[in-house]
Amino acid sequence: MGQCNCRKKRKVHERRCGTGRAGTPGGDCQELTDVERAIETVINQFHYAVKGQKEYLTPNEMQELVVQKLPHLGKCVGPLEEKIECMGDPDEAKLEFGEYWDMMGDAAKGCRRK
Amino acid sequence: MGQCNCRKKRKVHERRCGTGRAGTPGGDCQELTDVERAIETVINQFHYAVKGQKEYLTPNEMQELVVQKLPHLGKCVGPLEEKIECMGDPDEAKLEFGEYWDMMGDAAKGCRRK
Repeated sequence: MGQCNCRKKRKVHERRCGTGRAGTPGGDCQELTDVERAIETVINQFHYAVKGQKEYLTPNEMQELVVQKLPHLGKCVGPLEEKIECMGDPDEAKLEFGEYWDMMGDAAKGCRRK
Repeated sequence: MGQCNCRKKRKVHERRCGTGRAGTPGGDCQELTDVERAIETVINQFHYAVKGQKEYLTPNEMQELVVQKLPHLGKCVGPLEEKIECMGDPDEAKLEFGEYWDMMGDAAKGCRRK
């Protein structure tokens, strides 16, 4: 079995081909599309923002993410701040990936309406 | 009022500064972050996939988008196909931006579980 000859090392890509596993030409080892890379960026940001071993964000971590990573989009979305405040205890409440994705959607919708 | 001296021309960016309007140093004219550019890519893809003047995707257009733009992520998500089929008439049913964003979230969740 030949060495996987893909150059691009992307998280989704690695899972798709696995390191060292032979990549079938044009098979699973194609380049990710721009939209897939964009989705991957939003996924990875969730993991970067999560502190420790847990699998969720706290309201404080989400707030930090909005300030650091959504300096423009975050402004389009008044409700995003309110949503974060309504989540409960800033250090205890849990924001799972699905809710995080929904909030990114709110930022997207907010920015589209402008 | 000085000419806006921003080099990066991004859709959200233009709306933020507007062409010709003075950009306040470090104000609204900063560079978009990677996460904002990623969200913008997913937003723009919705508009590219919409045919004609309408503001929604048909199931057929969404199916085409999945085949062309989610060759990898689309595989993680059996239900995405079913969701598209359950939407009704392939040429008539309407997929608004919010539902499109939710489906992208399904692709993201499907790929995270792998």
